[in-house]
Amino acid sequence: MTARTDQSRATAERIIISVDAMGGDAGPEAVVAGMASFARGTPDVGFILHGPQDVLSALVAKRRDLEGRVVFCDARDVVTMDDKPSHVMRNGKGTSMWSALESVREGSAAGAVSCGNTGALMALSMLRLRKLPGVNRPAIAVLWPSRNPQGFNVMLDVGADVRADARDLLQYAMMGASYARNGLNIDRPRIGLLNVGTEEHKGRAELKEAHGLIADAAESANFDFVGFVEGIDIPGDRADVIVTDGFTGNVAIKTGEGTAKLIGDLLREAFQYSFLSRLASVLAITSLRRLQQRIDPRRVNGGVFLGLNGTVVKSHGSADATGVEAAIRLAYNLARTGFADRLAARIAAATRLLDETDMNRADTNRQRAEEGQV
Amino acid sequence: MTARTDQSRATAERIIISVDAMGGDAGPEAVVAGMASFARGTPDVGFILHGPQDVLSALVAKRRDLEGRVVFCDARDVVTMDDKPSHVMRNGKGTSMWSALESVREGSAAGAVSCGNTGALMALSMLRLRKLPGVNRPAIAVLWPSRNPQGFNVMLDVGADVRADARDLLQYAMMGASYARNGLNIDRPRIGLLNVGTEEHKGRAELKEAHGLIADAAESANFDFVGFVEGIDIPGDRADVIVTDGFTGNVAIKTGEGTAKLIGDLLREAFQYSFLSRLASVLAITSLRRLQQRIDPRRVNGGVFLGLNGTVVKSHGSADATGVEAAIRLAYNLARTGFADRLAARIAAATRLLDETDMNRADTNRQRAEEGQV
Repeated sequence: MTARTDQSRATAERIIISVDAMGGDAGPEAVVAGMASFARGTPDVGFILHGPQDVLSALVAKRRDLEGRVVFCDARDVVTMDDKPSHVMRNGKGTSMWSALESVREGSAAGAVSCGNTGALMALSMLRLRKLPGVNRPAIAVLWPSRNPQGFNVMLDVGADVRADARDLLQYAMMGASYARNGLNIDRPRIGLLNVGTEEHKGRAELKEAHGLIADAAESANFDFVGFVEGIDIPGDRADVIVTDGFTGNVAIKTGEGTAKLIGDLLREAFQYSFLSRLASVLAITSLRRLQQRIDPRRVNGGVFLGLNGTVVKSHGSADATGVEAAIRLAYNLARTGFADRLAARIAAATRLLDETDMNRADTNRQRAEEGQV
Repeated sequence: MTARTDQSRATAERIIISVDAMGGDAGPEAVVAGMASFARGTPDVGFILHGPQDVLSALVAKRRDLEGRVVFCDARDVVTMDDKPSHVMRNGKGTSMWSALESVREGSAAGAVSCGNTGALMALSMLRLRKLPGVNRPAIAVLWPSRNPQGFNVMLDVGADVRADARDLLQYAMMGASYARNGLNIDRPRIGLLNVGTEEHKGRAELKEAHGLIADAAESANFDFVGFVEGIDIPGDRADVIVTDGFTGNVAIKTGEGTAKLIGDLLREAFQYSFLSRLASVLAITSLRRLQQRIDPRRVNGGVFLGLNGTVVKSHGSADATGVEAAIRLAYNLARTGFADRLAARIAAATRLLDETDMNRADTNRQRAEEGQV
């Protein structure tokens, strides 16, 4: 096998990722740096890069790892963090974000990555890629550091929509299971439904209804349902997938993020306190770096939009090159496993099943919940 | 000044705390140990202790610090963690929890402390102590480690009720402000309303309405309203009081708790990794202990029930002696500042004001929200 054969094979089977260069806090430099870093170890990746072409081509020209890997798509407008989703939907046609999604829509790219405004990206994704048949509310799923062997749990929804009824939560369970199977290689993921207690009589009415629906779907959708879980289980090992509405999920991950950051800062202060503690930190530096890497949010950067015709990865707005690289890797891995098609097939099958046999059950549940029996 | 004078003065002005000895995971031993530890440094505290008198008097007899400070109240039944609140309300009359609340109800104690089942304690508290006039939903408030100078934020509701409408959230704001003033000595607390973004157009309808109500009440209720805050601000320094519904609040604190515990465990592992890192941990031990103490949840153990005729502190079910001591200290401090009466007066004034002038405003807001203008 020669280098030449490798090269031509890689070109033939290239996986193309569409990248929105603009809208992130760290600017297009960080985005291009992240692309280059990922391309270095991944011979079969290619990019379509969206934004002001003059600026971007100059940045790409400096990166040898990107030579011959990038197609430019000129877009002069940028969606800012302050733009309202409704405004972007009406006036966003010239933006790099719109353009990045267009490459997925027309099939030139296997997935899109953007560091821009979450609300606008979800609104445009729904507008241009459309929801999968049978999906009412798409969701954003993230990976969260946990005690599980795989090191992470999947959590959804973390902010696509502030509401979710029982059927939405069932769909989140199925989409989350599919994502855990393809993204974390877990054959039979354990699904938990987030609540304020693990007892079946606790919590809101829609959660009790969702509990029944998810339990019924577990067998045919090939996952285990562990029932209600609590906030403490998000970084725990009771479930691989945590299902909740976008309001609760968003508050939860931001609380976790804030807590981790506070502890990190206090730890740094603690080690600065005295000569002995500064010496200690020098001795412990490798161990501390290992810990930092284990819980570094940049390593798991990327919320995946689930329930659309196509893969969209939302990178953290403040992502640096390492964060952007992680988001691109996620889009690439999902593209390679054919995740979008598998998810669509599973949702289609589940929707059929639910429509045929479970509508009655859902109605019974709802009725019971109204009568206060559940 | 002689020891004798001190003693008699202390007896004359004793603050009596009613303590439920049963229902916690660590048993009555931990409760009595916590009482003794607090009594050691606090000459003017006395206790009424509820539970099986034979067991309890034997435990108390072993503690010199409790000599002459404890009145026993025999109660043979125990509320377990699995008992449903509705069951306890019907059949709980012989339990130590019921008995502990009775001492507050009849005025023999200035506050009650229990490690038992939260749902049952709240249900019994509402049944026996009754809600303050004007309060629709009582709330549970906790202190949470934060970047603020005082080291903590107040957060409520963390689980008294899974729902809260706009007027409930306004009352939480007022009760939280009053608690921050009396519990954390903050003259003019900054109130934040928890949401998924800080922009005013984001989030659920009831939050937009509550935003208006709380902003209007700020001046007369003597607090600053900083508007919407996010999960990341719960351990942050943008607000002193975080207002949310009991479902979201409960998930948030448990997520934060789980995250802190995961990091702590990983940190311990990191320091066990090699000879150098073990050496480092020995050198850094004082600094690490300082950090641990700063974020030790036992130090801030105790959720306060707000909105009732009387002070009830819910200690963590798994609290050890240190945790119980912290919960007792909290009840004692609130009793000493006359918190219950001050809160009642504030709620009464605010209710009058709201009824007289703000009903119109509330209606206008609701109408606007329905028309999608807010």
